[in-house]
Amino acid sequence: MDDERKISLGEGAGGELMQRMLKELVIPLVRNADIEYDPAALPPGLLDDSAAVDDVAFTIDGHTVWPLEFPGGDIGSLSVYGTVNDLWVVGAIPRALALSMIIEEGLDRSLLRRISSSIGSASSSAGVVIATGDTKVVERGGVKGMIISTAGIGLKHPLLDGNHRRASFLRSGSGAEAPVSHWLRDDGVRKGDVIILSGSVGDHGISLLSFREGYGFDTELVSDLAPLGEVIEAALRVGGVIAAKDLTRGGLANGLNEWCGKSGYSIHVSGPDIPVKPAVASACDMLGLDPYEIGNEGKVILAVAPGSEEEILEAVKRTSTGKDAAIIGHVGARGRNVILETEVGGKRIMDPPYGDPVPRIC
Amino acid sequence: MDDERKISLGEGAGGELMQRMLKELVIPLVRNADIEYDPAALPPGLLDDSAAVDDVAFTIDGHTVWPLEFPGGDIGSLSVYGTVNDLWVVGAIPRALALSMIIEEGLDRSLLRRISSSIGSASSSAGVVIATGDTKVVERGGVKGMIISTAGIGLKHPLLDGNHRRASFLRSGSGAEAPVSHWLRDDGVRKGDVIILSGSVGDHGISLLSFREGYGFDTELVSDLAPLGEVIEAALRVGGVIAAKDLTRGGLANGLNEWCGKSGYSIHVSGPDIPVKPAVASACDMLGLDPYEIGNEGKVILAVAPGSEEEILEAVKRTSTGKDAAIIGHVGARGRNVILETEVGGKRIMDPPYGDPVPRIC
Repeated sequence: MDDERKISLGEGAGGELMQRMLKELVIPLVRNADIEYDPAALPPGLLDDSAAVDDVAFTIDGHTVWPLEFPGGDIGSLSVYGTVNDLWVVGAIPRALALSMIIEEGLDRSLLRRISSSIGSASSSAGVVIATGDTKVVERGGVKGMIISTAGIGLKHPLLDGNHRRASFLRSGSGAEAPVSHWLRDDGVRKGDVIILSGSVGDHGISLLSFREGYGFDTELVSDLAPLGEVIEAALRVGGVIAAKDLTRGGLANGLNEWCGKSGYSIHVSGPDIPVKPAVASACDMLGLDPYEIGNEGKVILAVAPGSEEEILEAVKRTSTGKDAAIIGHVGARGRNVILETEVGGKRIMDPPYGDPVPRIC
Repeated sequence: MDDERKISLGEGAGGELMQRMLKELVIPLVRNADIEYDPAALPPGLLDDSAAVDDVAFTIDGHTVWPLEFPGGDIGSLSVYGTVNDLWVVGAIPRALALSMIIEEGLDRSLLRRISSSIGSASSSAGVVIATGDTKVVERGGVKGMIISTAGIGLKHPLLDGNHRRASFLRSGSGAEAPVSHWLRDDGVRKGDVIILSGSVGDHGISLLSFREGYGFDTELVSDLAPLGEVIEAALRVGGVIAAKDLTRGGLANGLNEWCGKSGYSIHVSGPDIPVKPAVASACDMLGLDPYEIGNEGKVILAVAPGSEEEILEAVKRTSTGKDAAIIGHVGARGRNVILETEVGGKRIMDPPYGDPVPRIC
């Protein structure tokens, strides 16, 4: 039986339990109200993927993936792409990363060397410098192999201005009631916005789970780990992007529910339009998992102003990681739920994941 | 026998072993040479306490202290002050922090609440906002209680301009050959610079060790954990500060040797002038530890241009954490060593610590 006085595993899973725990035990306590905030356009209180401080976007992620190397990546590339993606999705250009490595005594030197090289290549390909770092080695059993926490800073993307102008123009035509925020904000989605998903969901979590547990579902399935810059830039260049969110822990269900919860608008998505690879679908069937709740590391949802969706979709499809992009739904009337239209024409509420079916995948 | 293919505990201790490991297995591999650096005044390659990117100072620290609460602080206040101090010592005003918490399943909720509150008070007193964060909960044994990695960003302190003018003026009079860097840089110290220490050394490490192991050396001894902003600002206001370094892992010996190694100038310090509390001195005697190698969390060394030392010392002594400040030595001719003049008039080389006598103190 769970001891209610103790933190449970599910409270770290990025789902509803974690939101509750953070709201009870962390966020109101660490926030210091006596410091005056700039009325910045992306304030900490939003709990967006990054916050902006004086126009510098700032984010951090702790990476506890196990095993440290997996099909399609390792903790090094994960800690780079995981963090740059959190900057891209608010509309920032990643500029520099800071790495905190906590290493377990006894880690293979050759493994550390491979992970460092992977950090080097990933940061080159993402266009960021590793500006600073810190290393601790702890006794055996103090951590499992290695943990990397990565912070990133980024600057407002120059394409945001044009994007914002087009989004405002399209919004005013559609009669949406709210002004468009300059940064890409979770709470910015409004009725009529169209939702584009950049590719198939569940690849990262299922490939990692299968590799770790030796299920051998499909040896072809690898993590989708990738930087999202190309997709986001393609969309911003067209203009009209309202919000973007990378689908990590908690997957598509978590991302859509965060938009819904923060904006106060319902979201409608169509199951048959959501790309899921057959290997992922059959693994989920066998394990009783929901592919929409599985974490990804190279997929993003875009909410775009009505009228821009076709052009943005085409632009995203021309990128290397967005070939399978699809329009999966739209933002509906004020409401508190994400509604999923199923293959057979039924409807169900797509709840945010409660805990996490697959721990240690990021 | 140590397996040379495995990472050892001593390689995470902030001393010479760690420097070697980082230079072999991490730094050259993670650095991406194909990204063009701004010729910023505080580039990543310096491995200073922070790096500057586009005039934003940026730093990160992983905190693995054990136990999580100790006399004089806890992992929450430690993770705030440890990070803001790394910003202050390069001449930045801390602006915002990002927290990555890795929590062990089963942690007491009341403990997490206390730590969060401690983060809130510490960040208020240090004048920073907690801008963003990330939380992971891992299975029992996955970490020991909790790890917090904290990144910080800061802006150039407005007092740096006046400080720089006075330092340049004094330097040019003293015949020192190098221009004065704008940020406070480890490699900036030159012959003739005077070294001020802000207070007694070893309090943090010895009090934590004594508490953890139940030695009971002195129940009055507590960690010196504190933000260094008041001390640094007092010194900058006088002007003439060349470098500043907070004495964390590896203590005074590590700090002085970093200045020496990075600048190429020898450093001379006088043992009798270095404040060490009797409780720390006697504990070190009994345990065979060197107080100069013990970590601190609220002490800083300042290298100041000759002619400014008395005025800066007086200003520092008027601050709440700098009452016991003292001039402890000066920068000598080109050389590779820190020379300690002992009580009996002898001289010995003060080597950088090899490993770490007291693990998990920060």
